[in-house]
Amino acid sequence: MISIPTIKRFPSYLRLLRQYKGEGEQWVSATRLAEELGLTPIQVRKDMAGTGVEGKPKVGFEIDSLISAIICNLGWDTPTNAILIGAGHLGGALARYDGFASYGLHIVALFDVDPGKVGFTIGDKVVKAMDEMEKFIVKNEISIAVVAVPAEAAQELADYLVSVGIKAIWNFAPKDLRLPPEVVVERTDLATSFAVLSAKFRRIFGDSGDCVER
Amino acid sequence: MISIPTIKRFPSYLRLLRQYKGEGEQWVSATRLAEELGLTPIQVRKDMAGTGVEGKPKVGFEIDSLISAIICNLGWDTPTNAILIGAGHLGGALARYDGFASYGLHIVALFDVDPGKVGFTIGDKVVKAMDEMEKFIVKNEISIAVVAVPAEAAQELADYLVSVGIKAIWNFAPKDLRLPPEVVVERTDLATSFAVLSAKFRRIFGDSGDCVER
Repeated sequence: MISIPTIKRFPSYLRLLRQYKGEGEQWVSATRLAEELGLTPIQVRKDMAGTGVEGKPKVGFEIDSLISAIICNLGWDTPTNAILIGAGHLGGALARYDGFASYGLHIVALFDVDPGKVGFTIGDKVVKAMDEMEKFIVKNEISIAVVAVPAEAAQELADYLVSVGIKAIWNFAPKDLRLPPEVVVERTDLATSFAVLSAKFRRIFGDSGDCVER
Repeated sequence: MISIPTIKRFPSYLRLLRQYKGEGEQWVSATRLAEELGLTPIQVRKDMAGTGVEGKPKVGFEIDSLISAIICNLGWDTPTNAILIGAGHLGGALARYDGFASYGLHIVALFDVDPGKVGFTIGDKVVKAMDEMEKFIVKNEISIAVVAVPAEAAQELADYLVSVGIKAIWNFAPKDLRLPPEVVVERTDLATSFAVLSAKFRRIFGDSGDCVER
């Protein structure tokens, strides 16, 4: 079982390894990966052990083997079809975003609750009505839903998605979803990212006065 | 000094507290916050201690005080002006996204390297040319830049931003930036989020076969 912190580093390793491969290289050392990514060589060796690929004395790890093993461990070798719900600014951007394919994610349909959006094309996708969703999920054996709806609509939508067979939700809504433990949920929350940036910035450059009057 | 994990939970607390306030409530217990967010009451009490607000026996924490203290600790009480670089699909979505204002972030200008985009309006912002950027940063005392450029352009851009006075970078490019330690960087990387979702999903529902042939 590979740890979540290791999995979070896998995309960075993958980008770097693909870059090395593009530059015609065949082998890479843990030390070099560590240096490039600002990690300790020990951490890199642990992460590499998680891939199942073994390094060789003197030369290090074979780049091709590492790339395949990381892609396989992430499940990115099997194309995943997903639906996207919410055709607002963020949903629209996600529908148009062409970077998902490189990690095996294909957004095959886009749904929105607003009748004024249904039938319009965003990127190469026609916005479908919510009442077409259940049939689409069943027919196309969809397991993953990307949620980009307003916070107040997210929980109800998520409950519905689970009830019609969705097993994993990538949640872009600024809302903590409460779902059965067997449902996989991952949140990408702009507010949380900015919270961390903002708090670090305040520590270094802002006044660090007390926030509570006493 | 408040820990980063606590800071990451602050936006969730804030959303919940604002919801309670909207429902006319004045006090909240750590137990209730814990239950709602799936945390232990001990964790919630630690997080609340970080805000500086003290709870009262029987009634718990005053909602208004917690809201103010969390906003202050995040630095969201002071409006922050930032520039956005990259007017592609993701950059365009971020430029139009109206949710930033609620955490005090105002994107005041949008820049792109593509002369074909300069002069066009995205949302309520005119895309400016890169050679106007330095002057804009200095004149408007901008410290924060939001980066939504392709991976291969990100490092060079970041180096330039730092050289003209930027102190914090919110990086949406799928690239690990190497910057001086005094520069605050926070990455929002769609690939990493999907990696975690995808790996969890694979563990539960996929085949968990070995990824390396032996």
